[in-house]
Amino acid sequence: MPAPHDTTTAPDAYAPTDRTVPTRARERASYDREVVHAILDEGYVCHLGFIRDGAPVVLPTLYGRVGERLYVHGSTGARPLRMAGREEADEAPGLPVCLTVTHVDGLVLARSAFHHSLNYRSVVVHGIARPVTDPAERAAALDALVDHVVPGRAADSRPADAKELAATAVLRLDLDEVSAKIRTGGPNDDPEDLALPHWSGVLPVARTYGAPVPADDLAPGTPVPGYLTRR
Amino acid sequence: MPAPHDTTTAPDAYAPTDRTVPTRARERASYDREVVHAILDEGYVCHLGFIRDGAPVVLPTLYGRVGERLYVHGSTGARPLRMAGREEADEAPGLPVCLTVTHVDGLVLARSAFHHSLNYRSVVVHGIARPVTDPAERAAALDALVDHVVPGRAADSRPADAKELAATAVLRLDLDEVSAKIRTGGPNDDPEDLALPHWSGVLPVARTYGAPVPADDLAPGTPVPGYLTRR
Repeated sequence: MPAPHDTTTAPDAYAPTDRTVPTRARERASYDREVVHAILDEGYVCHLGFIRDGAPVVLPTLYGRVGERLYVHGSTGARPLRMAGREEADEAPGLPVCLTVTHVDGLVLARSAFHHSLNYRSVVVHGIARPVTDPAERAAALDALVDHVVPGRAADSRPADAKELAATAVLRLDLDEVSAKIRTGGPNDDPEDLALPHWSGVLPVARTYGAPVPADDLAPGTPVPGYLTRR
Repeated sequence: MPAPHDTTTAPDAYAPTDRTVPTRARERASYDREVVHAILDEGYVCHLGFIRDGAPVVLPTLYGRVGERLYVHGSTGARPLRMAGREEADEAPGLPVCLTVTHVDGLVLARSAFHHSLNYRSVVVHGIARPVTDPAERAAALDALVDHVVPGRAADSRPADAKELAATAVLRLDLDEVSAKIRTGGPNDDPEDLALPHWSGVLPVARTYGAPVPADDLAPGTPVPGYLTRR
């Protein structure tokens, strides 16, 4: 498996580019690898943008991370996976994408309508998604996708068989051109608005998990695994 | 204010198009207006995709809905808003976009790695985002954006003044080419996997709200409004 990103010697931050420096609120941007990884690892769905017939398309999809690589997967018949695998003359297959992950952490209520906002953490990745063909990298990517949903689960499920592997396309997107954007804290009301009577502050928003719901056909007495109850 | 979509006589469903019929899992697709509206109204952030310099860009942003119209807003200096306002020869200003909203409802653990999935509800809207210039429509859109964060809040905050309005661009995206996609229920294990020892089922995921956190500069004794405590 090629290893273009040796994270043990990589700098702690991604290099900003024209595309990853925001035009607004630059103080909210971060290029720190640990910050980016933490935001990515906490998400379940990314929003994958690509161009189809000249128009933008944004689809929600699962993803997984292995070091400085993100993986998405899907049926070999699904559009972005088909498009990424298409060979163009003299060019390696690949699909220009933008992959975005966002967490909403709070509703920010200011005295003025204008300063209403959200507290959030987001990561935006630009790059070329390329088909993964190496069997070992494909297997590792599929494990990462399952473990991204529930850490520890890949080892406690039946691995993909040859038929399933043949039906699954895996795309890799390297973490090169990456930025995070984070808003925290209270509202930024203008000084002249502070005496207005409206309540002002933040309503925190978080994710919560319910009790595990066994499948209808699960054998009675099958224990709930520890990786689910430890949440 | 023009009213191209009279919802009182509109059919109950959006007409499917090439772009809104999925290549996979068609049974999960819905074009029902009420289903689409409910998914949109429950979200805080949409992922707005557009094309910049030939490459896809996906940015998280607030949105609001008024009937069959979605609104996004931002600084007049922000990229997508600037791009949407640019006049091309002989064409009305507008930016081709894809706007997607997704809710994660559960983690689906199958016996096989292959059948792991998420329960989710998503809406994908294709269309042209156009700048809103009519003052009454702009005001209604800005109210909708605030009320989307907290219903009832627009009336309990200071409306935008002339300077704030001049600094804010509003884009409209009509709900014409729209689909929802929904997965619910347990894992779809293959019959030959049912005897495997792995736990199988769904871990529900939901949104939760914390106690309201008053702004540091909020006057002591300011009551928490009912629209926050009724959640």
